[in-house]
Amino acid sequence: MFIFADIEGLFMKFDLKGKDQGSKARAGVITTDHGTIETPIFMPVGTVASVKGVHQRELKEDINPDIILGNTYHLYLRPKTEILEKAGGLHKFMNWDRNILTDSGGFQVYSLSGRRKIKEEGVKFKSHIDGSYHVFTPENVMDIQRTIGADIIMAFDECTPYPCDYRYAKSSMHRTHRWLDRCVSRFNNTPSKYGYEQTLFPIVQGSTYKDLRLQSAEYIANVGAEGNAIGGLSVGEPAEEMYEMTDIVCSVLPEDKPRYLMGVGTPINILENIALGVDMFDCVMPTRNARNGMLFTAHGTINIKNKKWEDDFSPIDEMGITFVDTYYTKAYLRHLFAANEYLGKQIATIHNLGFYLWLVREARKHILAGDFYEWKNKMVKQMDKRL
Amino acid sequence: MFIFADIEGLFMKFDLKGKDQGSKARAGVITTDHGTIETPIFMPVGTVASVKGVHQRELKEDINPDIILGNTYHLYLRPKTEILEKAGGLHKFMNWDRNILTDSGGFQVYSLSGRRKIKEEGVKFKSHIDGSYHVFTPENVMDIQRTIGADIIMAFDECTPYPCDYRYAKSSMHRTHRWLDRCVSRFNNTPSKYGYEQTLFPIVQGSTYKDLRLQSAEYIANVGAEGNAIGGLSVGEPAEEMYEMTDIVCSVLPEDKPRYLMGVGTPINILENIALGVDMFDCVMPTRNARNGMLFTAHGTINIKNKKWEDDFSPIDEMGITFVDTYYTKAYLRHLFAANEYLGKQIATIHNLGFYLWLVREARKHILAGDFYEWKNKMVKQMDKRL
Repeated sequence: MFIFADIEGLFMKFDLKGKDQGSKARAGVITTDHGTIETPIFMPVGTVASVKGVHQRELKEDINPDIILGNTYHLYLRPKTEILEKAGGLHKFMNWDRNILTDSGGFQVYSLSGRRKIKEEGVKFKSHIDGSYHVFTPENVMDIQRTIGADIIMAFDECTPYPCDYRYAKSSMHRTHRWLDRCVSRFNNTPSKYGYEQTLFPIVQGSTYKDLRLQSAEYIANVGAEGNAIGGLSVGEPAEEMYEMTDIVCSVLPEDKPRYLMGVGTPINILENIALGVDMFDCVMPTRNARNGMLFTAHGTINIKNKKWEDDFSPIDEMGITFVDTYYTKAYLRHLFAANEYLGKQIATIHNLGFYLWLVREARKHILAGDFYEWKNKMVKQMDKRL
Repeated sequence: MFIFADIEGLFMKFDLKGKDQGSKARAGVITTDHGTIETPIFMPVGTVASVKGVHQRELKEDINPDIILGNTYHLYLRPKTEILEKAGGLHKFMNWDRNILTDSGGFQVYSLSGRRKIKEEGVKFKSHIDGSYHVFTPENVMDIQRTIGADIIMAFDECTPYPCDYRYAKSSMHRTHRWLDRCVSRFNNTPSKYGYEQTLFPIVQGSTYKDLRLQSAEYIANVGAEGNAIGGLSVGEPAEEMYEMTDIVCSVLPEDKPRYLMGVGTPINILENIALGVDMFDCVMPTRNARNGMLFTAHGTINIKNKKWEDDFSPIDEMGITFVDTYYTKAYLRHLFAANEYLGKQIATIHNLGFYLWLVREARKHILAGDFYEWKNKMVKQMDKRL
């Protein structure tokens, strides 16, 4: 096993600022060359160099996340790494000067079921755009992510489906660990390209098996990376099983490094996982559901397509977290969805992302105040409604 | 014939501020209860209570038109007049506190060819949404526009196709005049609904026949409305024919009232018609073409989908009229179109509308400076290129 602390000096800083009294929730600050990230944090997903339907200016000024996420698989296919390299990396290409994290393509490979083949060397897959064949290996995924230029890049892993047979989960986990060693080796032997540092997060796998999760968390913790991720959850398993796995893994992953739970989840999932010691989240839910007319609020979810909102001229959300909430009414937003006007999707997306970012900021405040646990329980109850 | 000056006091003010030396171009200011409109003006089209893909905040702060347009046919079908009435009118419904003009549905009826039947009483048509049957008459179109609540509303007319047989053009024109009388009568006998005044513009028709255009312009001029419109152009006729008709009509329509050329056009069409004495324009071209990747600039048009822009990291438009022009690069915008990301359409729409509004504002400056004609000729040459 390669240990990178031995090879390179640490670049990313993580300062723990406070812990909750009634839970394992923590508040921290990550510092990279692109600035600070206050944790817990939710990272909006900007798959192909765009958070769908949202201008970077709105993202920065209205939603205001310290970090966003890009997808290696998508960016590799379009605009292609060659264009990103010419642009001087993804930050410049999309004009985003704060932090970016890229996934490794592992999850995308998993979702290409039927169009990919996994071997020890790597994965052969078929592009969803033109059917062309490509290969991802731990090595070239490091190279691609070096070229995309995100601040935080992810190890190449396999994300197992749910449910997953124990034997497959175990052998897949071991392969993910072997792939990790190859990733670390390649990462340590290649420089960053654009004058700022990058850091590599390894990923814990092991499906929903406690012993595998423990084993994987120990393997990952030993790598000594500057942050660690938990993958393979939120793939269909019951929420309780997800929480159980997160809890086990967080008990092993180092306390002084940020923990990133990949692809999670609903506002309730996020609060519950913060309570278990998770610091970073990403999910397409706020953006994808927005485009289908589903709004998340502090008092429950709204299906804005419902006829009941047709003549409701109250603001979208009285809380007014982002400008859209008080600028437009429910009736107007409902009309935009009924008339299939794209502005509806734009408004709902800003609302949902604004709400997700508000939620993690509020969580942080309550952690620092020491009353996160009580607040979390109140919010979980309050948000578990359909309005 | 009903003359409305006889029946009601004038509400809309139009002050001519200056005339060009070398052409018939004029600069003016229209004042209504929703503020002033500096002319010449281009009105962005907000068909169903939304300028497609543009937040009202961006429309106001970045594009900054004094007036926008809504479509009666579309608004009548969705969200329906009943909802707009409950909302307190279109301004409140969509949160737009500047001027609005609504068309009469006449043009939409024309484009529903095959799904509508024109009679003396009015037009029976089939909804493009659910196939249901509806009837527009001069009277109910006034009522609908009273309820929508635009500041400037349009008479119910028939927009003839191009080419149009002389006999049909003539009989259609006469019907449009008879419909106008019914519109004026209904308008004068109904109050505005929301505490601010509305004004009715009649529409000159007559296809591309000089004698009919003259006759129609005289009929319309005699109505004594606070502003007058020219319809039935930009429906496929050569630009020279359009300019000839505009010229004839403007020579008859009163000098002291704004002249609105409906549905026109390219940036070049707009400058040429300003030179003939037109004050107001609307067109879907900047927004629709934007969604297809076509950008208008002061130096020609850009098809941003072309591969040639793939690695062009220069700003979308060095002129920087709206924030998008310098915030994003051509390569990035090209990528968004290639990846079918809606943000591409949003960016292109803001760019094009910003450019159209810049163009009419520049035209105004040059009219006031007296050198519009020379500037117009330079611009027409300059814009007639593909970049």
